[in-house]
This record gives sequence, structure tokens and C-alpha cells, in this order.
Amino acid sequence: MSTSTPVAAKTVREAAEAARVAAARLAATTGAERDSALRAIAGALTDRAPEILAANKRDMDDARAAGRPQAVLDRLAVSDCQLAGLTDMTRGVAAMADPVGTVTSGSVLPNGLEVRQIRVPLGVVGMIYEGRPNVTVDAAVLCVKSGNAALLRGSSAARHTNAALIAVMRDAVAETALPADAIQGVPGDTHASVTELMALRGLVDVLIPRGGRELIETTVREAAVPVIETGVGNCHVYVDEHTDMERALSILINAKTQRPSVCNAAETLLVHEAVAPAFLPRALAELARHGVTVHGDARVLAAASAVPSAAGEPVVVAATEEDWDREYLAADIAVAVVDSLDSAVEHIRRHGTGHTEAIVTESQSAARRFVLALDTAVVAVNASTRFADGGELGLGTELGISTQKLHARGPMGVIALTTTKYVLVGDGQIR
Amino acid sequence: MSTSTPVAAKTVREAAEAARVAAARLAATTGAERDSALRAIAGALTDRAPEILAANKRDMDDARAAGRPQAVLDRLAVSDCQLAGLTDMTRGVAAMADPVGTVTSGSVLPNGLEVRQIRVPLGVVGMIYEGRPNVTVDAAVLCVKSGNAALLRGSSAARHTNAALIAVMRDAVAETALPADAIQGVPGDTHASVTELMALRGLVDVLIPRGGRELIETTVREAAVPVIETGVGNCHVYVDEHTDMERALSILINAKTQRPSVCNAAETLLVHEAVAPAFLPRALAELARHGVTVHGDARVLAAASAVPSAAGEPVVVAATEEDWDREYLAADIAVAVVDSLDSAVEHIRRHGTGHTEAIVTESQSAARRFVLALDTAVVAVNASTRFADGGELGLGTELGISTQKLHARGPMGVIALTTTKYVLVGDGQIR
Repeated sequence: MSTSTPVAAKTVREAAEAARVAAARLAATTGAERDSALRAIAGALTDRAPEILAANKRDMDDARAAGRPQAVLDRLAVSDCQLAGLTDMTRGVAAMADPVGTVTSGSVLPNGLEVRQIRVPLGVVGMIYEGRPNVTVDAAVLCVKSGNAALLRGSSAARHTNAALIAVMRDAVAETALPADAIQGVPGDTHASVTELMALRGLVDVLIPRGGRELIETTVREAAVPVIETGVGNCHVYVDEHTDMERALSILINAKTQRPSVCNAAETLLVHEAVAPAFLPRALAELARHGVTVHGDARVLAAASAVPSAAGEPVVVAATEEDWDREYLAADIAVAVVDSLDSAVEHIRRHGTGHTEAIVTESQSAARRFVLALDTAVVAVNASTRFADGGELGLGTELGISTQKLHARGPMGVIALTTTKYVLVGDGQIR
Repeated sequence: MSTSTPVAAKTVREAAEAARVAAARLAATTGAERDSALRAIAGALTDRAPEILAANKRDMDDARAAGRPQAVLDRLAVSDCQLAGLTDMTRGVAAMADPVGTVTSGSVLPNGLEVRQIRVPLGVVGMIYEGRPNVTVDAAVLCVKSGNAALLRGSSAARHTNAALIAVMRDAVAETALPADAIQGVPGDTHASVTELMALRGLVDVLIPRGGRELIETTVREAAVPVIETGVGNCHVYVDEHTDMERALSILINAKTQRPSVCNAAETLLVHEAVAPAFLPRALAELARHGVTVHGDARVLAAASAVPSAAGEPVVVAATEEDWDREYLAADIAVAVVDSLDSAVEHIRRHGTGHTEAIVTESQSAARRFVLALDTAVVAVNASTRFADGGELGLGTELGISTQKLHARGPMGVIALTTTKYVLVGDGQIR
């Protein structure tokens, strides 16, 4: 294996042009060749773990020296165990079916012309992301699997880690039938390089921003390149009139507390008034036990008076109008009592972000109505909102969760990185 | 049936808000209800033909008075026969399978959670178009079929025709289970109303511009609402080394001359040098016979000297560098001799617009290489480029041909007007 040589200094445009050339070569590779490159990447991530971890230590030292908060350090850290997880993920994606060439529809016209619509790679995929360096590997692996060239722009805080990961993956790919330029970092650490990337319409086929609301909104507003938006999740759990209480409690606690910092965590609980007297006291007690602050409406505040407080602290604070729209990403939840399923649907239509909504109900017709009425990427019946996740849903890993409606909606895996091509085969048809 | 009452004066935003309300109702309709509304529209287009034709006469009179060119008048005219065609199209779309609710993928996770991805309407579809009033009916019909509310903005030259068509369709829909606001014209005749429409992100789910390059580029550049781009077609016909000459000739003449003004007409002919001596003289003579001006490279000019000229006019003029990039939409074609299939691919990669490319060949491996190598919406083997058409490909009718890669590529029918929703059904799953 070649030693890791730094990529020659390039402009962002030159990197994109190299990616375009690589994309044309990638489009002609077989699935076996791409899977073989993925297994080479998996092997290299293991074999060269020490240099990746050393690079990560440099980033961590820099971040500590800069006085970054612990949450940032947590996101930045790459452990042995996480690296092993990335290796496993890469092998898992290699073992998945090839999306490229899949026939999505086909027929023979009355005149004998054969029509097929097949999946093909998008071409050049630009990824702009913050925080976790695992996105570098997730994005590269999904791009290689789907025959796309990846242009990766992580946060400058992770610059050494990302550079090491990209060098390791490039070297691994270079030993296979694929071009090393299938995976490239975007040159330059400054915002100017991001601005330049966003302008390369025609060279870059799609940009996927993954990170905070500001990053996403800036990209959507400023990019000339088409953008797939990964969005904010103000996810609701609605506990319906006819509900198994234990089930509702365990779904609520999982959705809110299992990992509050992610977009598929629950942010609002809606409770049907018929079950509120029985359910609310138990729910409030459980939420308090898990350290969750409840922002409740008047009826929730009333119910809270019956709940014993652990340390004399209020279990519930009064919800403001803003609480119904907040994505806390923390140990907070807004809670309201609603007088019907339709009121719950209305509330979610007004305040939801089209990410993931859950209903807990024993009523088949209530479930059906909830699923049909809500315009959202994911709707869950009697299951946690946390299943809105590419890994959970069998996509191998994910590039993010799209809350837009065009092209891809919900957890995005390799399919979101493909487009289609109509192939018409005839024997001289003109009519 | 109610008489045609003009829509009460509204702002563009009010119309979009009414469309949003209609979209929520449409999402809950059944396919049978939507097909019944389509049959009501088909009936009304026949029953109320006189008032539609009278409105069209007003537009035609206005256009003649304004001294519009004949090509504009041709596009503006609606005949009895065209109206009958729209009625037939509407009935045909009503008879097609319902795209809404189609399960596009599904599985059961190891923990028993059922996962389905289903097609759902986009919501509110805005259409901005020029010229032909038939687009008013095409767009409304495809929107109703797919459960979307349509906001239609045709050209001001067709204002009376479009208003009559929309009034007739709204009245028909109002007599069914669907809300009349499923179909609305965008209020206002000025460009300000288009600008307002383009800003309504969150109210309008997608904008589809259909018309000239300027309209499309303006919409892509200025709209805050997501746009599906319908694009320019610089379509190539490549005549390969091993080719049935008769077949190549008939495909060339059909692709170029059957309807030169449309985006799937051929604009460039590439001929492999091995067949150029035999093929070019016949091709040039046939093109001349059909009144097509050839813009040829040096080798084509040389071949032309052997072709008898009809009226002493030159059969071939020298191609400029710009000719390889032109979408003539007229009786002109650029012609070049290439030394290999790879050269043809390179030429198309450089000059093509990703619309439709055709190869005429008897070689299986040449066909395979051409299909794989070109990054284009449609690729045709031994068939005319003119088959890149929603009607031809069985979509009922089309909203336009997308040359972008995200969401929809190639001829767009009802599927392009849908998005998907993940539906997860469990019995309390949290892990």
C-alpha cells in the first residue's frame, strides 16, 4: 500500500473538476469493483487506526486549548471503538445490494420499443458538515457504493482527523479499480472554500449540508448547486384516547430520553383529554425521574400538582407559545392536552417540521387517520420516533434525514445518491 | 352544473393558502374520487367547448391586433380538435393506475416493526408556463390525478383561454368530492404575481417552469420555492460504424424533421468515419430534400461537394464552434464526422444538455458502451429521440421533460408530482 501523501494543493474548482473525471470513471465500474473498494477502505481503517487516532488527538488538543465546550469535544472524539464501528458499517454497506443499474420501471411499447428506467449515480456529491468526523466515512462509503465522487468539507475543528480519514480512504481506493479522486476533501479551511463549492453548478450535482439550522439555511439560500436539505425535527408523540398506558410510557421515555440531542428525539407530547387524568401523572413522574423539564399547558400544570416532586423542584413549568415550535435537543419537552385526534393533527400541522410524528393508539381507525392526515417524512404507529434513522431502517448508514419533499424524504441512504436514466431500445422505431 | 363565476379577487398568497387547504383535503381523497373528478372535467371540456373556443377567439383577436408573429398565433390557437384531444387525454389519465399510496418499498425489521415507504402527493404545485393553453389542462389533470392542488400561471397572451379552461375545470370539480380550489389560476397578469409566487416557500411545495430558456433560468435563480427544471435539448443522433443505413436515415429524418420546434428533436448528427463515405451523401441529400440546412465540419463540407444541389443552393454551410452547442428548434442541424464511438461520447459529453441522445448501431457492445457512458435523461438505441415524451412513454401526458438529476429526470408525469412518506407500524417497539 502506498504511503499517505497529502493531496497536491488544488483550488476548489480543480478538485471538483477532478471529481467530475472520477465520476465518469465510477459510472463505468461494476458493483463488485465498488464493493471491493469498500472492503479495502474497511481494512485500511483498521490497519491505519493509529494514525487516525493520532490525528484526532491533535484536533482534540487544539479544541481543548481553544477552550471548546465539552459537548463539542464529545462530538469531535474518535475512539478505537467508534473506528471499529465505522469499519463494520463499511463492510455492511459493501454487503448490501448494488443500487446502480436497478430497473425501477420498464415496459415494451405497442410498437416494440423497450423502455427501462434505471438507477444511475448522481455524479459529484458535495457534503458540508459540522462536528462528528464519522460523517466523513459515512458519506464517502455511501458515495462509493452508489458510484458517486465525493467532495467532503467537514468542520475546521476536525481538520486533522478528516484529513487522515480521507488520506486512508484514498490510498485504499487507489489500490482498486476505482480512481482515488472518488474521495476528496474540499481544499481550504476558510468559509471562502465553502462559498466557492456552493457556486459550482454544473460541476457538482448536489450539495448536502448536515449540521445546525444556520448551516442548512445558508446553503439552501446561497448555493447555485442543487441542495438536499436535512432538516429540523420538532417530533411529536401523540397518546390517543384508546391506548395501552405502559406502551405509551415506554415509547415516550425512549423517544425523549434515549438520545435527546438528535433530530428524531421527541420534543412535544400531546395527550388526549380522555386519558390525560390517568396518563399525565405517570408520564410527568417518569419524565421527572429522567431529569426532563416539562413545559406544560394549563391542564398539564394542573395535573402536575398531583405529582410528587423529587427535590422540591417544580416538575412542570408553564409553556410559552414558543415552546410548541422548539426543537430542544435537550432534556426538555413541551406537553399539551388535546380534546381529540383532530386537535392533535391540527396542532402538529401548525407546529411540526415534517420530520417524524408518532401516535400511540389501539384504534385502527385513529392510526389510519393519523397516518393519512400528516404531511411528514416519517409517521410511526406504536413505535418510537427514534426509528426515523437510516441505520435502523436498513439503509446501512445515512447521509442525514431529509425533511424536504423533492428527490429524497426521510432517512437518506444510497438511493438518495442516485438519479434515473430512461433507456429505450428498438430496431428502428420512429413512430 | 353551476354557471362559471369568476374567482373572487385574491392575492397570490391568498390563492396559495386556499391551495394549501385544498391540498390537505385532496390528500384524504380516494383514487376513485379523483378519477371521478377527472371524468367530470373531461365532460365539461366537451359540454362547454363553445365558451372555451369563444375565449380563445378573444385571445387570438388580441394577438392579431398586437401584430404577434404567426408562430405565436399557432401556439395560442385552440381548435375543436385539440379540445377533443384534451378530453381524451383527461379520460386516459383517469383510467390510469393511482400513484398515491403505492408502496415503493417495504419490509419487517428484525424487531417486528413494519416499514413501508408510500407515495403521497407533494401538496401544492405551481406551474409557470408560456404559450400553449393545453398546458393548463395537462397540469391540472396530472395534479388532480396525483392529489395535488394546482396553481396555474399561463402567459398573459392566453389569459381569456386559460381563465375559461380553469373556470370550466373548477366548476366540474366543485360538483365532485374534491374542492374547487384543487385548481386555481394565479391572480394577476403582471410579472409581480410571478415574483410573489416564487417567494412562497412553505406554502407552495414545488414550482415547475415550462417555456423558454429565460423563463426557466429566471425561475431557478429567483425562486425560494423548490423548482423542477425543464431543460434545453441539444439532442444528438450518432450513426455508428456498424449500422443499417436505411434505419439510420429514417431515424435521423424523423428526429430532425417530424417537429423541429420541440426539445426532443435532433440538433446534431455525428457520423462514424468508417460509414461517413457511404452514409453522408445520402443523409445530406435527404436533409436537403426536407429543407434542412446542414452546419458541417470540414469532412462534411467535403462530402457535400458530391451531393447534387436542388436549386443551386449550398447544401452545407461551415459549422462554427457555437453550432455544436445550439438548440436550433428549426430546420437546421450540425453535423460532424467522428473517428470512433469514444469520440462521439466525448463530443456529446462536452456539448450535450443531458436531455436525449441516440445511437444507431448493430453492435451490441457499442450500444452498451453508449448507454453506460452518457449522463443523460434519456438514451435511445436504434430509435428516434422523439420518443423522449411522456405521452409516448405511457405517462398519459407530461408536465415537461426534466434535465435535472434530482427528484425527476426525463419526461415527468404523475410520479414526479409525488413524494414519499415512511410509515412505521409496531406494537410498542423502542429498540
